Amino acid sequence: MLNVTDSLNLHHKLRGKLSIQSKIRLNTRKNLSLAYTPGVAEAVRNIYINKNALYDLTIKNNTIAVVTDGSAVLGLGNVGPEAALPVMEGKCAIFKEFADINAFPICLTTQDTEEIIRTIKNIAPVFGGINLEDISAPRCFEIEKRLQKKLEIPVMHDDQHATTIVVLAGLINAVKIVNKNLKTVKIVINGCGAAGTAIAKLLNYYGIKNLIILDSQGIISSKRNDLTVYKKELVKITNPENISGNLDRAVIDADILIGVSVKNIFTKKIIQSMNPEPIVFALANPDPEVTPANARKWGVKVIATGRSDYPNQINNALVFPGFFKGLLENRITKITDETKIKAAIALAGLIKKPAQNHIIPSIFDKRVVTTIVSAIT
Amino acid sequence: MLNVTDSLNLHHKLRGKLSIQSKIRLNTRKNLSLAYTPGVAEAVRNIYINKNALYDLTIKNNTIAVVTDGSAVLGLGNVGPEAALPVMEGKCAIFKEFADINAFPICLTTQDTEEIIRTIKNIAPVFGGINLEDISAPRCFEIEKRLQKKLEIPVMHDDQHATTIVVLAGLINAVKIVNKNLKTVKIVINGCGAAGTAIAKLLNYYGIKNLIILDSQGIISSKRNDLTVYKKELVKITNPENISGNLDRAVIDADILIGVSVKNIFTKKIIQSMNPEPIVFALANPDPEVTPANARKWGVKVIATGRSDYPNQINNALVFPGFFKGLLENRITKITDETKIKAAIALAGLIKKPAQNHIIPSIFDKRVVTTIVSAIT
Repeated sequence: MLNVTDSLNLHHKLRGKLSIQSKIRLNTRKNLSLAYTPGVAEAVRNIYINKNALYDLTIKNNTIAVVTDGSAVLGLGNVGPEAALPVMEGKCAIFKEFADINAFPICLTTQDTEEIIRTIKNIAPVFGGINLEDISAPRCFEIEKRLQKKLEIPVMHDDQHATTIVVLAGLINAVKIVNKNLKTVKIVINGCGAAGTAIAKLLNYYGIKNLIILDSQGIISSKRNDLTVYKKELVKITNPENISGNLDRAVIDADILIGVSVKNIFTKKIIQSMNPEPIVFALANPDPEVTPANARKWGVKVIATGRSDYPNQINNALVFPGFFKGLLENRITKITDETKIKAAIALAGLIKKPAQNHIIPSIFDKRVVTTIVSAIT
Repeated sequence: MLNVTDSLNLHHKLRGKLSIQSKIRLNTRKNLSLAYTPGVAEAVRNIYINKNALYDLTIKNNTIAVVTDGSAVLGLGNVGPEAALPVMEGKCAIFKEFADINAFPICLTTQDTEEIIRTIKNIAPVFGGINLEDISAPRCFEIEKRLQKKLEIPVMHDDQHATTIVVLAGLINAVKIVNKNLKTVKIVINGCGAAGTAIAKLLNYYGIKNLIILDSQGIISSKRNDLTVYKKELVKITNPENISGNLDRAVIDADILIGVSVKNIFTKKIIQSMNPEPIVFALANPDPEVTPANARKWGVKVIATGRSDYPNQINNALVFPGFFKGLLENRITKITDETKIKAAIALAGLIKKPAQNHIIPSIFDKRVVTTIVSAIT
C-alpha cells in the first residue's frame, strides 16, 4: 500500500517534477551565435515566409500543452489551478516517459468557458497539440468542440476520450470470454459526467444500440425535464425503450455494467439483477463501485477497475501517450470517432487470448504506444 | 563570420532547441503511484490548504515564461508569434545555460494590450516569473506596469531593464577611464523605444540630471506637440534647458552618446561635436550606429556595441539570467529601480581596472550570475 508521506517527501525533494533543457550548450560564442542572435534570424525569416517551417525548426512538432482550470482534479474536485499543478506535472512526465513527447503544464486562473477558449487560442502557436485535463463537465464539452474548430492543431479532452478508448478495448476482449456479441449486449453506464458521456457516445458510434446511462437522478430518458443540452443529446442515442427509474431498474437484463461514479454503489442486489456472466467495469477512483473480491463473490465473470493493484486496470495512460504521438507524427489536426475506434481495436488486439484477469495490456507493455501510433496513422 | 546556413541547418537538425524532461522515471508502478495518482493527491491537498506550498512542491519555484507577441523581434520587427519562436527558444536556452532556470516560451496570437495582460494573468499559476520579450513600445510599458500590479510574481520586460542595467554598468566603468563624474556629465540617448526610454529613466533615478533623449523626430522637449504619454513623462526627467532640434544640436557638449537606434547614423561630424574624450555606446543590432574602427579614428575614447565580435559587448544576457535567478531564489515579487541599480553596480564592480577595451565582463565569466544574484538579495 502506498505511503502518502513518501509521495509528499518526493515532491519536496524534487521541487517540481519537470525540467526544461536546452538541446545545445550555449557555452561558446559560436553556439550562442548559431542558436541565438545573429544566426537565429534565418530561422525567423524562414518561418515568416512559410509558417509550416515552424514544424521543422522549432519545438512545435513534439510539444503539447496539458491545460486545466483545476475544476475536476482527480477525485478531489474543484481544487483550483494551483493545487492542480502537481497532477499536471505528473501527466507531462507520463507523456515524456511513454511517448517521448514534450508536455508543459498550463494551469488557468479562470473557469469561464469563453475565457478558457480565448486563452488557449492565444497561446497556441508554440504547441503541436492541446490536451485538456481535469476540466469539469459540461464546460469541457464546449471547450473541446470550439477549440477543435478554431485551432489548426489537435485538441483532446483526455478524461473523455482516452478513458473511452481503453473502456472500448477492454469490452472488446471481455465479451470474448463470455462469448457474447458486443454489438447486441445490453450495457448500463452509471455516471454521466465527462467520462460517462464520452463512453456512451463512442459505444453508440461503435454500433451498440442497447445502452442505458444514468446520472445521480436516475436513468436519462425523454421523460426527464431536468436535462442539460448535453444530456438531451444522450436521449437520442441511449435508452431505446425509454424506461425510467434508478440503477436497480436499469440493470435488469444488463450484460455489462460500467461505473464512472462513486465507490461501493454496485451492491449484491444490483449485480445479481444482471444477466448471467455479468461484466463489470467499476472505474471510480481510487475506490471502485465494487471491489473485485465482492464482485467475484456475487458472480461477476469479468471485473475491471481503474486501480493498478487489481487486475484489468482501465487506465487512460494506456492511450494518451501513443494517441498524441500518432497525432503529432502524422500532423493529424482533427480527432474523429473513427480514429478513436481504430485505437481501441488495436489496443484490444494486443491481448491474443483474453482471460478473466487479462483483458487489457499493462501500461509498461512497450508495444502499447507503437501499436496505437500505427493504428491511427 | 557566421554562416547563416549553419544556423538554419542546426535548427533543422534539432527540430526545436528545448526539451522537457521528467526528473523522475515513471517506468515502475511504484514511481508512477508516487509521482502521479494516487500519491500526488497529497501534494494537491497541501497546496489547496496553503498556496505557498506551490513553491516547495512544484516547478513554480524555478520556472519562468518568456512571453512575446512577436511585434518587435530582434531587428526584424513585427514578424508575428510563430516566427518569433526560434528566438524565444534561444532565450530560454540562455536562461538554462547561465542560471539553470527552467524557461518556457509563450508566443501570443494577439497584439492587443488588454488581451495580452489577461492571457498572461490567466496562465500565471505555473510560473515563478514572467519575462516579457520583444514586445514593441509603447504597449510594452503598460503591459509590464499593469502585470506587475496584478500578479504576485515578478514581471520584467527584458529589452528595457536588462539592457539598461548593462548600459549603466558599462557607463560606471567607462567614465573612470576618462576621469569624469557620471552624475555630472551630459548624456545623449538617440532612440526612444523600449530600451531608450528605460535607459533614460534608470539613469535619471541613478542621479544623472543632464540627459537628452531623441526619437526619430528629434529632441524630446515640452515644445513638441506630437508626444505620447510615455514620451511626455520623459520631458520631466530629461532636457533641463528644454532645447529643440536634431542629433547635431543634441550632441554639442555631450560627454556620452548612447545609440539605441539604427546603423551608421553617428557620423564624424556628430562625434566630433562632443566634448573631448567622448564615450559612445552604439547599440543598434546587428549593425551599430558607428563601427569601432570609425569611432576610434574620429577620436572616441571608449566605444561599446551590442556585438560579440567587438570589444565591450553590451549584451542583456549579462543580466537577465542572474537577475531572474536572484528574483526567484529570494521570492522578490516587485522589481524596483533600486534593485536594478544594485545589479548594475555589482556588474561594473567585476572589472577591477577598467580599460578602453574592457569596461564590462564577458557573458562567459562565471562570476557574473552569482554576483548579480548576491547583489539583489
